[in-house]
Formats: sequence, structure tokens, C-alpha cells
Amino acid sequence: MLTREVLADPVALTRALVDIESVSGNEAEIADRVEEALSATELKVERFGHTIVARTELDRPQRVVLAGHLDTVPLHDNFPSRTEDGLMWGCGTADMKAGTAIALHLAVTEPAPRHDVTYVFYDCEEVDSARNGLKILADRSPHLLTDASFAVLLEPTHGLIEGGCQGTQRVMVRTSGKRAHSARSWLGENAIHKAAPILERLQRYRERIVTIDGCEYHEGLNAVRITGGVAGNVIPDECVVEINFRFAPDRDEAAAEAHVREVFDGFDIEFVDSAPGALPGLDAPAAQELLAATGRPPRAKLGWTDVARFAVLGVPGLNFGPGDPNLAHKQDEHVELAKIVEGAEVMRRWLRGS
Amino acid sequence: MLTREVLADPVALTRALVDIESVSGNEAEIADRVEEALSATELKVERFGHTIVARTELDRPQRVVLAGHLDTVPLHDNFPSRTEDGLMWGCGTADMKAGTAIALHLAVTEPAPRHDVTYVFYDCEEVDSARNGLKILADRSPHLLTDASFAVLLEPTHGLIEGGCQGTQRVMVRTSGKRAHSARSWLGENAIHKAAPILERLQRYRERIVTIDGCEYHEGLNAVRITGGVAGNVIPDECVVEINFRFAPDRDEAAAEAHVREVFDGFDIEFVDSAPGALPGLDAPAAQELLAATGRPPRAKLGWTDVARFAVLGVPGLNFGPGDPNLAHKQDEHVELAKIVEGAEVMRRWLRGS
Repeated sequence: MLTREVLADPVALTRALVDIESVSGNEAEIADRVEEALSATELKVERFGHTIVARTELDRPQRVVLAGHLDTVPLHDNFPSRTEDGLMWGCGTADMKAGTAIALHLAVTEPAPRHDVTYVFYDCEEVDSARNGLKILADRSPHLLTDASFAVLLEPTHGLIEGGCQGTQRVMVRTSGKRAHSARSWLGENAIHKAAPILERLQRYRERIVTIDGCEYHEGLNAVRITGGVAGNVIPDECVVEINFRFAPDRDEAAAEAHVREVFDGFDIEFVDSAPGALPGLDAPAAQELLAATGRPPRAKLGWTDVARFAVLGVPGLNFGPGDPNLAHKQDEHVELAKIVEGAEVMRRWLRGS
Repeated sequence: MLTREVLADPVALTRALVDIESVSGNEAEIADRVEEALSATELKVERFGHTIVARTELDRPQRVVLAGHLDTVPLHDNFPSRTEDGLMWGCGTADMKAGTAIALHLAVTEPAPRHDVTYVFYDCEEVDSARNGLKILADRSPHLLTDASFAVLLEPTHGLIEGGCQGTQRVMVRTSGKRAHSARSWLGENAIHKAAPILERLQRYRERIVTIDGCEYHEGLNAVRITGGVAGNVIPDECVVEINFRFAPDRDEAAAEAHVREVFDGFDIEFVDSAPGALPGLDAPAAQELLAATGRPPRAKLGWTDVARFAVLGVPGLNFGPGDPNLAHKQDEHVELAKIVEGAEVMRRWLRGS
């Protein structure tokens, strides 16, 4: 059980959440504890699997979402937590139980925010997107999210506002040829050799850098895998280059796809995965208020986050959390206690408007 | 047991040898039968593992080698043999029991050839060269081979003289880079992109065609495999292109290596395998006699064969066998009965000198 004292202290609450093991697929216990804590408040609580939605019903003119996932990547000799010299170490400290703890702390201790708030605690963010609790909620009960005008995802940003997110596409570019014995190679057609212009175009490619709402989005078009070959004495008849395109949110998925097709014009191209980016939405009044509360300039989120799921629903959003994003999924994952305290204060100032 | 009648008929002998299963590593029975047949002759027979050497001791001014391997690639629903419409089907018919049968038939039925003859029947040609019976014999008892001035390997050539063989080298050309998250690709260095010039040089490469003793050797420099990539969201830090160089026998291994190093100048290159080619040696008097016996022009052997092992010992050699080399290792492997008869007649004419 999460006691009143623990819920009142975002650092203690972070520690308590980290010490409930919740590797993706195993969120039952942490979800029970979170539901229990929220049920003791005035919030309207609903549970869907291991995803919990808690809403203020204060008839404010505007509603905002605060969201955090409950799961972690697999443990790696980094459980339970350990605190030393102002740092808390352990699986999920940065990604993202410190952020989730801030949201839960505010849900329990801030009964009268200036905006209505929808708190969302969800499961399975670290695995297949088909299992993602926020995705499932957005698919089945979108009305619980779409009545908000703004969302904050408490993913690690090291205490800075990170606007929107990049889109990402995975693309297979293929060449084909004709097998032959390598001792009589002129009877075949070498598919690996034919991939030369694909790599050449990637090497020559100049990435676009786009500034939106003061956030600099750096794109990237990269081969992440290449495979080809049958046997040591056979001219290969196929070569596949797997490419990852990370694109700025001023392109939608169709525009991104058209761009990739243009770059690899003349080649056999298959799009195997696509997720849209999200515009930073920093011109939203609630975003401006949160920016003012941090007192620091925003930057772009370089990576894909669930902010894009809000964008698809028409809800602009940003990322703001105490952890360092570069520590996510690492064995030496940790979070600065001071960043947790500061993050909770910023969010409270914002919700109180003072 | 191989009866006298079977040994006297190269077609029946081919069938008998095909019907003794002898996938590489399982040559005990076929070697026993061959040894038994040879021991009933005047030949001097020695056995080393499943390799059998049988020599005439006629004090002729010149000695020649006739060699054939006893093993086959794995069966593939093509055992035992089946004869229909002048074709014998089955594993090992073309590669190379028809050729081996011709050598064994001559060993048993030709007591007074004009040259002394060393017959070699050996195991494990279709596997790792370390297990190759001819290689082991050449390493341990080279004197049994080096007193010959000329060798005929009865590998499938479809009844033509195929001179010498190409050399072959396997080379790894590597690029390295620096890993990074693909959402922040500019922090890394993409090793796959850096492989562009390797493929480009391969694509631009113009193969040399060299004519030696009337045989046209067509070289080939080919990527046979390419690998690179860590995960779908990671900038890859290594890419490896495996290259197979098939070179004409006017280059020795050192010259071939120097050429490959020149082509890939500036790249990290590792030679993992190298086998020399063999010059056709068609100016040897015994070769001229055999050419005359076939009455057909020679061509180059495009591929690597054990002829190169004789070349290394200073014994020029050529390939001559009834099977079609393009059927080797195929499920529908077969041999024309007429080619077996014709091959045996050519070889006999040559050995008799009439």
C-alpha cells in the first residue's frame, strides 16, 4: 500500500513505485496500488486492464492530461532501488517512474487545479505498440482523452520541455538479381552490387533541420541493417537495405513516405512500419503557462513518444520529466532526487497558476 | 563385390558405384570394393584411410595420374540410380562416379599402358578441404604423386578437356562506425553508408578475360554476402562485405591478393581463404596426346578443382569426365550413357597410344 506520507513526497513515491517490480506484462500489482491511492481521492477513477484513468470534475473551462506509463524494460541486476549521494538508481527510475510518481503525487495532493486534469497511468509502453495501454485507451475510449486541450507526458526530458516528437518509418529497399555459381559470375546478376546506389544516396543525403516553435528537429535517414547473400560460391539474387527515417513533425506520414520514395526513386520500396510525429504545440496557452513555470527554453523531442498518440487525437502535447532520456533502458539507469522535487514543483506551480 | 563383368563395362561399373551410398564421411564400403577390385590386378595397391593408390610398375619413361573421388554430396531423393532412355539418374552419376568408374575400369582392364599410371581414388572431396583425401595424400606421401609428369582428374567436363582451373579467394572488406540511437543519428557514424564505395567499386569492376593455351579464363570479383546492423533503432557500427575473387591461373595467390588490395585500397581487408589456380599445362606432351584422342578443342575449367593440388606439386593437369558439370550437386543429376562409353574409349586410346 502507498501510504499518505509516501504519496505526499514525490521522492519517496518514486522509490515506492520503483520497488514494485513492473516489467511490461507484470503491471497488476503496481496498477492495484495506484488505483487504491486514486480511489481515496475525489477523482473519478476508471480502470481498463492495468490502465487507470482518474479525472477531476471541476467544470474548468479547459482540461489537460498528465500521463505516465507504469511498466519498465526487463530488470538487469538493478532492482530494487538504491539511493546514494542524491541519486536514486534502479530499473525505471528515469524511464519513467519518477515522472509517473509526480503525476500520482499531484493527483492525490492537488484537489483544486486551475484546469480540469485527466491523469492516465498505463501499461505496456515498453513493448509492441499493439499492447500499449494508452493506444488501447485511445482506440476504445477516445472521449476520455479528446476532451482535453493539452497533454503532458512525463517521459524523461531531464527537466526541460521537449516539444512534440519525430515521426519514424521503417522501409525495406530491395534489389534483385540472378543466382549463378561465382566461378561463372557473368551468368548471374549480382544483387549486392546493385545496392551500391542505395548506399551512395544514403551517404550523400543531407539531413534537414527544421525549427518549429523554437524546437529544432534534426531529421535522419539511415540504413539500420543490410542483408544479402546465399552462399560463399553463389552470386546473390537479393539484397535488402532496412532504412529508418526519423522525420520532423512538419511532415505527415504521407509526406514522409513521398520523400523516401523520391530519394530511392527507381528501387523496389516497401514501408513496413510508420508512426507519425507530433508538432510541439507550444503555442497552446497551457503549454505557454508550463514553459513559464519551468523558466527554461524548450527543445525538440528527438525520438518517438506516446505524445504522437495525443497528436493523432488532435490533442497537442509535450514531454516533461525529471529523468535523463539518455539513461533510459540502461543498467545504470538513475534519477537525480533534486530533479524529482523540481519537476513536482514546476507542475504544481503550473496547475495552481501561481 | 564388383564382378569381373561389371568392371569390364564402364556403364555397369558407374551404376554399381552409384548404388553404393558414399556421402562424404561414409566411404568405407565403396573404398573396400574398389580396393578389392584393384588387389586382384598386377597393380601395386596402397590404402590410406579411404583413399586408395594403385600404381603400374612398368618402368615407362613417363608416369601419369588418373584420379577420381569416391564421395558424393548428400542424397536428395535420388538414390539408388535409375536408367532410362540412355540416361543414368542419381546422386553422384555426374559428379563423379562416371569418371571414377572409367579410371577403375581402365585400372583393371588395361594392364600395359604406354605410360606408367598412378590411379588415385579418394574420399571427402565434397567437404572441408582439411578432410580431402587427395590433399591428405599430397601432404603425407607426396612422392606417390610427384613422380608423375601429368595428371587427369575425371571430374565432369561433359567430355571436353578442361584445362587447369581458376584460383579462388574469400575476402572480408569491413567498414566501422559508431553506434547511436537512430533518432539522434548525427551522434553516430553509419558503417553501412560507409560501405557505398565498396559496392560501387564492385559494380564498376571490369573482369579480365585471359586466354592461356587456347583456354579462356574469365575472372570474377563478387560480393557473395553483406551483413550489417544492430537493431532497428541503432546506427550500425560495422558492415562486412564478403567477396569471392575467382582469378585466372596466370596470377598466383600473392598477385591475386595484391590485386584485391589495390581494388579496395583504403579499406580494412582480411583474406580468410585462398586456393591457387592451375595453369592448363596443355603444352605437356601427354596433354597433347589426350587432346588428340578427344579430337575436340580444350576449354578453361571455370571453377576450382583438385587439379590445383597437382599444380602445387609441380604436376600439370587437366579435367576430363563424362558428366555435365552444371548438373553437379543437383537433385536431377544424371549422366549420358554414351558419354561414359565415349570417355572410356578416349582414355583407352590415349593410354594405348593407338
